[in-house]
Amino acid sequence: MTVKAYGAYAADKPLEPIAIARRAPGAHDVQIEIAYCGVCHSDLHQVRSEWGGTIYPCVPGHEIVGRVSAVGDDVTRFAVGDLVGVGCMVDSCQHCASCADGLEQYCENGFTGTYNFPTLDAPGHTLGGYSQRIVVDDKFVLKVTHPEAQLAAVAPLLCAGITTWSPLRHWQVGPGKKVGIVGIGGLGHMGVKLAHALGAQVVAFTTSESKRADAKALGADEVVVSRNAEEMAAHAGSFDFILDTVAASHDLDAFTALLKRDGTLTLVGVPEHAHPSPDVSALIFGRKAIAGSLIGGIAETQEMLDFCAAHGIVADIEMIRIEQIDEAYERMQRSDVKYRFVIDNATLAG
Amino acid sequence: MTVKAYGAYAADKPLEPIAIARRAPGAHDVQIEIAYCGVCHSDLHQVRSEWGGTIYPCVPGHEIVGRVSAVGDDVTRFAVGDLVGVGCMVDSCQHCASCADGLEQYCENGFTGTYNFPTLDAPGHTLGGYSQRIVVDDKFVLKVTHPEAQLAAVAPLLCAGITTWSPLRHWQVGPGKKVGIVGIGGLGHMGVKLAHALGAQVVAFTTSESKRADAKALGADEVVVSRNAEEMAAHAGSFDFILDTVAASHDLDAFTALLKRDGTLTLVGVPEHAHPSPDVSALIFGRKAIAGSLIGGIAETQEMLDFCAAHGIVADIEMIRIEQIDEAYERMQRSDVKYRFVIDNATLAG
Repeated sequence: MTVKAYGAYAADKPLEPIAIARRAPGAHDVQIEIAYCGVCHSDLHQVRSEWGGTIYPCVPGHEIVGRVSAVGDDVTRFAVGDLVGVGCMVDSCQHCASCADGLEQYCENGFTGTYNFPTLDAPGHTLGGYSQRIVVDDKFVLKVTHPEAQLAAVAPLLCAGITTWSPLRHWQVGPGKKVGIVGIGGLGHMGVKLAHALGAQVVAFTTSESKRADAKALGADEVVVSRNAEEMAAHAGSFDFILDTVAASHDLDAFTALLKRDGTLTLVGVPEHAHPSPDVSALIFGRKAIAGSLIGGIAETQEMLDFCAAHGIVADIEMIRIEQIDEAYERMQRSDVKYRFVIDNATLAG
Repeated sequence: MTVKAYGAYAADKPLEPIAIARRAPGAHDVQIEIAYCGVCHSDLHQVRSEWGGTIYPCVPGHEIVGRVSAVGDDVTRFAVGDLVGVGCMVDSCQHCASCADGLEQYCENGFTGTYNFPTLDAPGHTLGGYSQRIVVDDKFVLKVTHPEAQLAAVAPLLCAGITTWSPLRHWQVGPGKKVGIVGIGGLGHMGVKLAHALGAQVVAFTTSESKRADAKALGADEVVVSRNAEEMAAHAGSFDFILDTVAASHDLDAFTALLKRDGTLTLVGVPEHAHPSPDVSALIFGRKAIAGSLIGGIAETQEMLDFCAAHGIVADIEMIRIEQIDEAYERMQRSDVKYRFVIDNATLAG
């Protein structure tokens, strides 16, 4: 089956209409009519080969929501017409220790990303959600139980949502815990919403005075402008956990200083240029840690979607037509979006 | 009471004989006739003010063992003649959350170190174990149950031992766990002994081919020369925990690469020059952490001493006379010691 998509033929080429093949659904496959696809910063990095290793043509998109349009013979959990989602992964080895633990994102044999990863399907690498349809193994398809009217705003939960949810849960954020969320962008705005809904005391850190009111509206109990040394110092040694969503190179010591004994600063962004080397004595004199976390497993992604549906949580989005993707990338680079662009995939029909 | 000690009057002066005052034991004090004192790298840094902030005269020494020579009226746990030890701390606030948790080393109001910390005693800062006697609050005195013949080799347990024991216990090292110990010096040789006795599979990392046999003799199941990339690669992704005792600036990525998912690399040394900035993606793609750990609390120091007595564990030492301290410092800087110098404090009498 050939479907319309948007992709790039080279790192220095803009995205353009492209026809791609999708496999006929196998026994365990779910075919999805994509309604909306969120626009993640990774899409931009990958399509421009800023991380290296991009395979062309590249069709980005891993915050996918839509409706099931066909299922394979052995699929029992999904039926035609169901609202579903697909995130950053479409396959994994299914037999290593991490897969057995439901943490496919750490698959020891390498998970298959939704785009730019090797696959048996033509053209030999996966093609993402900037397309009309996708065919995915049912193990990697998520149920969406939000009202259909919220569907577009559910899309960013599949990457921005789970990338913040997984560490918040792993480091046991909840009532009685003081939690910081650094960076109020696509990921950070979800982090604030989720940490607040989990019952924690939430402090949002931003470099922009202008985001103060917004961050409060998202659910932050307090907002700290991280450039203001006095504001920062007032929180010294008081956080159980800080989730740092900022990928740009920055000073980590400013945040380890705010942790309590045994606190953890968890990073979810890979900086293009390394952060300044963190001060080891700040870790030693408080048994603190700097950790990393990658998206989340399929089971915890479902848990997050169900939690969000139960609590009425969605992303704050700005809808775009597919032709606006370059403009959206430009605005995203300037952080000029509140807080996630979502493509209306119906506009791919042209 | 005036006692003989060895100390320095300035950063650029060698250690020399010096007479210091010790307070009369108060109701809760234990007066100790020091038999032996271990020589820690910190002693050298502090006495030369390499970390800055050294107060002179400086009498180093925080690996103290000896015999109780007097006790205050309210002391019930110790009697004259008992074998005892004193480590890196002689006091703490006793009322913060960390003190309440028995983790006085993280005292939120600052513990009182055994030397170079403010005190009400003359001359206004604490003076350490390179001296004939010391008077310490009984809460900070440890019982030594090793045979007296081992007393000198028990001294290094008070800093090198507890600094490795505390993280090994906190990160739950034991049977079924694969543990790395980086650096086979004063701390590392204790780390290997303790991790082995705790039942873990122990891999020692050293930069010296020459330490291979020694590290095995200490209890390592395997020894890896960390300069050998092939040997390192053979252990990729296999460690639950790595304890890094090397204070010199070095590449941490070489060790985070060896951790399993959810593994932790814990540093106990503060480098003079920062380590190269660690690769954040290595942390993210495995939910790994880089943490720090500082000595240990009083309760866990007693636990460690009791464990060592039960398992016949002591440090490997080279005994020196106090006049040899400068030579010992020089040799320590070249790592020319197996594995800890211990001062025979009887030589202070001259």
